Amino acid sequence: LDAVMSEDDLADFLAREFPEARGISVERVTEAGLVARMAVGEGDLRPGGTISGPSIFALADVAVYLAVLSRIGPVALAVTTNATIDFMRKPAAGVDLRAEVRLLKLGRQLAVADALIYSDGQPDPVARASMTFAIPPAR
Amino acid sequence: LDAVMSEDDLADFLAREFPEARGISVERVTEAGLVARMAVGEGDLRPGGTISGPSIFALADVAVYLAVLSRIGPVALAVTTNATIDFMRKPAAGVDLRAEVRLLKLGRQLAVADALIYSDGQPDPVARASMTFAIPPAR
Amino acid sequence: LDAVMSEDDLADFLAREFPEARGISVERVTEAGLVARMAVGEGDLRPGGTISGPSIFALADVAVYLAVLSRIGPVALAVTTNATIDFMRKPAAGVDLRAEVRLLKLGRQLAVADALIYSDGQPDPVARASMTFAIPPAR
Amino acid sequence: LDAVMSEDDLADFLAREFPEARGISVERVTEAGLVARMAVGEGDLRPGGTISGPSIFALADVAVYLAVLSRIGPVALAVTTNATIDFMRKPAAGVDLRAEVRLLKLGRQLAVADALIYSDGQPDPVARASMTFAIPPAR
Repeated sequence: LDAVMSEDDLADFLAREFPEARGISVERVTEAGLVARMAVGEGDLRPGGTISGPSIFALADVAVYLAVLSRIGPVALAVTTNATIDFMRKPAAGVDLRAEVRLLKLGRQLAVADALIYSDGQPDPVARASMTFAIPPAR
Repeated sequence: LDAVMSEDDLADFLAREFPEARGISVERVTEAGLVARMAVGEGDLRPGGTISGPSIFALADVAVYLAVLSRIGPVALAVTTNATIDFMRKPAAGVDLRAEVRLLKLGRQLAVADALIYSDGQPDPVARASMTFAIPPAR
Repeated sequence: LDAVMSEDDLADFLAREFPEARGISVERVTEAGLVARMAVGEGDLRPGGTISGPSIFALADVAVYLAVLSRIGPVALAVTTNATIDFMRKPAAGVDLRAEVRLLKLGRQLAVADALIYSDGQPDPVARASMTFAIPPAR
Repeated sequence: LDAVMSEDDLADFLAREFPEARGISVERVTEAGLVARMAVGEGDLRPGGTISGPSIFALADVAVYLAVLSRIGPVALAVTTNATIDFMRKPAAGVDLRAEVRLLKLGRQLAVADALIYSDGQPDPVARASMTFAIPPAR
């Protein structure tokens, strides 16, 4: 499906509707979906320099949401109904996280996508997430 | 399995090892597992008064972790390997969240549990989570 | 939600619409959902007497489906959209499986439920499943 | 990780250890993992020509299992501990299913992979599965 929102459109939407997602940005809208990144802050860290599970979840959730919106437009009311995450490796300390999202289904009621999460510059993913979003009926 | 850590033991552990889990507390160690609660703060809210998905994830993750520790003792190195969450209803605004954890398996390598998350005082759960933790080999 | 189909209604529906689910039967419609059982046959076994993962999946899928129908009536077109299973223990050889289903949400578009699967007569569950069904729009 | 079992090795293993997986075959060991296929038989069908969920689950489970073995050798005791499937589209009637497996982690204790399942010749996946296997300690 062709993108209907550009990187700039998504950045504007994010700043306006999700001010709390500070630190997350869209790197690139791709053919498969989208690449997002998260600047890791103090609040995302756990003892030993690990990044917290909720922070990884937050990146996956926002990145998949933006990937869906990039194809269907700024539907602020789409909501996550199911999320599954496999935490596979310890993230590297002191580097950003990148999420590579792949859209798998964009139906009228449900959208499905998955994401691989990387410590920036590392070859192996730290986590894998799949998400389902419910899309509100068109008005 | 009998509990080896009390509510107070778990509160001490949480304060010492997870200062960032401020707002989460153990209400009661139960026969099935444990009940925890989270005081919802400004940072947990989304426009419209909804509680953010990452905050609900954080409560589920910490609550299940504490339920596992309540049976095996303070093993700080247990890590979440898989988490699945179904978001089912919009949380009520302005009230705490409660997590009722049910331990399903405590093996030598893996622990499995699930949790129902409620807006305090509401009869229907807002979310359901299941989690797997990897337990490090005993030394 | 009150049940609108009895054990006999569900047995009739199953025989008529799912003849391939031979071996699965409804033991009891419960307040939380439903209890179903599966007579384990030769085709369900793996070397060593274990029951195959697909057979456990089939029981969970049919049991949750019937639990949903017990509340909304015989909607043959409801379809599974997401299934998550944790396989926790080796099933006992030569005994039936029981599935205890708990309905968590019955919305207009989505139904969510989970199930614990037991080897009949054993106290600890062999598997835990959660399922989401999409319910077709009423006509 | 380099493959240590060829397509022929895997076919021999499958015939010897999983005679009940008749109908499933390895098409190709790939750099990312493996491609398997399943000849859809009468027993896999549901009314309307749909392929049953348990049959799709069985293909995903065996395909991921073989992908893991292709890298670590014929460890018959590896067991599925977690499986998550999103059913996204109705499979086409009368055609084989293909599973494209991507290995994401091969640790000492756990292996994680996901698979996209296609109706042969169709561009969009009918299902997405992720699986975790526990690998028994080396002797």
